[in-house]
Amino acid sequence: MLIDEISEELRAIVGENWVITDPRAIDPYLFDKTEPYIRPQPIKEVIVVKPGSIDEISKVMKLAFASSIPVFPRGGGTGLTGGAIPTRSGIVLSLERLNRVNIDKNNMIAEVEAGATLRKLIEEAEKNDLYFPPHPGDEGAQIGGLIACNAGGSRALRHGTMRNSVLGLQIVLPNGRLVTIGGKALKNNMGTNFSHLFIGSEGSLGIIVKAYVKLYPKPRFSATLLFPFSSPNDAIEAAMELLWNGYVPLSLELVDATSMRKTADYLGLPWKYGTGEVYLMILLAEPNQEMLYAEIEGISSILSRRTSGEPILTERREEQDEILKIRSEIYSAYEKNLFEGLDVSLPLGEIRNFLEMLNRIGEKYGVKFPIVAHLGDGTFHPDILLDSKEKDVLVKVREEIYESAISLGGSITGEHGIGYTRRVYAEKYLDEGLKELMRNIKKAIDEKGIMNPDKFIP
Amino acid sequence: MLIDEISEELRAIVGENWVITDPRAIDPYLFDKTEPYIRPQPIKEVIVVKPGSIDEISKVMKLAFASSIPVFPRGGGTGLTGGAIPTRSGIVLSLERLNRVNIDKNNMIAEVEAGATLRKLIEEAEKNDLYFPPHPGDEGAQIGGLIACNAGGSRALRHGTMRNSVLGLQIVLPNGRLVTIGGKALKNNMGTNFSHLFIGSEGSLGIIVKAYVKLYPKPRFSATLLFPFSSPNDAIEAAMELLWNGYVPLSLELVDATSMRKTADYLGLPWKYGTGEVYLMILLAEPNQEMLYAEIEGISSILSRRTSGEPILTERREEQDEILKIRSEIYSAYEKNLFEGLDVSLPLGEIRNFLEMLNRIGEKYGVKFPIVAHLGDGTFHPDILLDSKEKDVLVKVREEIYESAISLGGSITGEHGIGYTRRVYAEKYLDEGLKELMRNIKKAIDEKGIMNPDKFIP
Repeated sequence: MLIDEISEELRAIVGENWVITDPRAIDPYLFDKTEPYIRPQPIKEVIVVKPGSIDEISKVMKLAFASSIPVFPRGGGTGLTGGAIPTRSGIVLSLERLNRVNIDKNNMIAEVEAGATLRKLIEEAEKNDLYFPPHPGDEGAQIGGLIACNAGGSRALRHGTMRNSVLGLQIVLPNGRLVTIGGKALKNNMGTNFSHLFIGSEGSLGIIVKAYVKLYPKPRFSATLLFPFSSPNDAIEAAMELLWNGYVPLSLELVDATSMRKTADYLGLPWKYGTGEVYLMILLAEPNQEMLYAEIEGISSILSRRTSGEPILTERREEQDEILKIRSEIYSAYEKNLFEGLDVSLPLGEIRNFLEMLNRIGEKYGVKFPIVAHLGDGTFHPDILLDSKEKDVLVKVREEIYESAISLGGSITGEHGIGYTRRVYAEKYLDEGLKELMRNIKKAIDEKGIMNPDKFIP
Repeated sequence: MLIDEISEELRAIVGENWVITDPRAIDPYLFDKTEPYIRPQPIKEVIVVKPGSIDEISKVMKLAFASSIPVFPRGGGTGLTGGAIPTRSGIVLSLERLNRVNIDKNNMIAEVEAGATLRKLIEEAEKNDLYFPPHPGDEGAQIGGLIACNAGGSRALRHGTMRNSVLGLQIVLPNGRLVTIGGKALKNNMGTNFSHLFIGSEGSLGIIVKAYVKLYPKPRFSATLLFPFSSPNDAIEAAMELLWNGYVPLSLELVDATSMRKTADYLGLPWKYGTGEVYLMILLAEPNQEMLYAEIEGISSILSRRTSGEPILTERREEQDEILKIRSEIYSAYEKNLFEGLDVSLPLGEIRNFLEMLNRIGEKYGVKFPIVAHLGDGTFHPDILLDSKEKDVLVKVREEIYESAISLGGSITGEHGIGYTRRVYAEKYLDEGLKELMRNIKKAIDEKGIMNPDKFIP
């Protein structure tokens, strides 16, 4: 095999200990968090390489480039679309050793190496009374992966996705060339835009090795609100009215009560947060207590016209954390019965129509969907459960959901990206001119097609 | 001339009336708002073409491509870096006839053709109780130009630059191919990132013909606050404390009293807004009155420790508009005595250091700078005034200001972009790897180099 021939050279670059060829040690690098029913079969004939510096990454890429060997960049392996799974014989390039986080408190910025976990960034920021809002759920995700996948999460409503947090990037191109883009300024019209070529490119154009990301002051006064509704439609109407009145909570989530209770059970937590068919879960954070109270007051008066019971309001840190924990573990609670977790996104005004379509699809195929949505920005997570259905039925369910989202002007993916599992749909739904442009750019940057092949680019 | 040979073909595409060859009618298309002392000499041997549809634009580009004729896309001509000035014989392609604005109220989105003015978009949005935040100053700017230049303005503090407003784009590539990217969803990880290749590309990669932009509910309760300080440093310290406490006003501006009074004079308005050396001018907008008051209260209590007098607070629409008008016309008030308006940007914590450097440069060359800054996002506008200095002195002043910004981790341009006038500095300050990448991408998309040559790309 070609890769065997380069293993000595790889060892010379990164050191004996950081080139893995033992199959048992390689195994954890062959999978990400993509559901087993939909993920691609990994190719096991790979070498895992763990460079310790940007310079070593550059040398590894030069070697791969010269030998036309595929390279699969790997972060925390928390992706849900098979984007990190090696599908050809080649190099799995793990960023895990580049994990430094340097907080520049004075400028409210973090200088983060690609392999630092989200958890570490959050902790380091917190030590400095700072705060990093993007949060896709799994804190084992690494910054390089978050950027490569333009991760979002519930707080994107106020703070945007990763795209809005990145001020500067360092990239190693497929030919080993290091590129530095942007810097520490918040506004920068001198070449910054090329960062965005790599944000969301899912490892297909280069290796993100370092970033400057924007931090925020730690929220001073926060509250979590749970409003019960007797139907999703009521909750959606109420939420839209909030948005129309100009409220921008940190997050504005829609969850069904069954999923919340089931997840509390799964976590061994008592459910003490009232009754209702569905909930609007609202996170607020304001710089002073009076603003927070005035916001709670305003929001409550709008929502109370449609609620089905008393809202739960908590400002206590531990209670807020518990509710958030339950919300963020819904996915885990369903995981064993999960065929595929979707993340379609809709224009705001079409959410009600989408829910209607979703119900019709459910009835047609005899399936039920947990209702979990980042409602405030139109991202819906209709998880497709196994429920002892045949795979081809579940695929039809997926495809009808995609058709519905697209027919309403939405997207098949608001957060998780294309990766491997959605390539066929990207091929189907992306504009012909755009696909041609994407291939053209891919070829210009990765002329040998070695960067994460079989992924992203249709 | 080559362009004379294609004028008949151009007439066949867009119609007799929309091909301009009369030198007097061409003249207004040869300039933008770049200061006369720094702008490039326009080439007068151009044909102005005004297509009436995307299809016509595509045909014009195919013709230009086939004949390798340079194309200079033109919006409102309000740019300040010569980006729209034709520097070779070719076609000036004006988007002015593509000026439709279609408000999709239900989804809080506008579908805007590239030639629609900012004024029109603002008006149409307002009719629907909606609001478009980006505002670079001159409302004659067209949407295509705003996107091509990633325009910002003072409200970028809360709402970001144009980049944050664009959900979808249609582009005509240099070869005439139409590309559609993104759509109406707020979150979209299916190919959206390629929009960002064109946002900020200053006409160098393709012609932006249409966009979906995000709108917001019209602010319900707003106020404008003017806090006087006896020194810029006091004002900067106070503003940093606001930011550190988590306040995110709509805008947070620093202006010196002389500039405000001079501009009020210039506009024939009385100055009734108190005394002070410099002001922090703060725009607030909140969804309810109590939030607004609590915000004013919180901000006042932080700032009052350092102010030099009583703050002015106004909630009356007309008064707020008057103050804003004065602020936004400072540039015009200085215009006749202006060598060049700069727009350097700094990391937040370096603003004080920058101001110190600026003072030293002023002393060294015997010049004074108006102090005008979008302080909240670190963008400084140190206008270089003529003040009967020699041009080479003023160029030295500019270059020392650039050096200072770069040495502090900032950028030479936070808003206005590179265009023609800053190419030499982009060449100097951009990373070598990035420049190579930029040229590579330019070549992949615009293989014949016909798109706005001599601009942007170093």
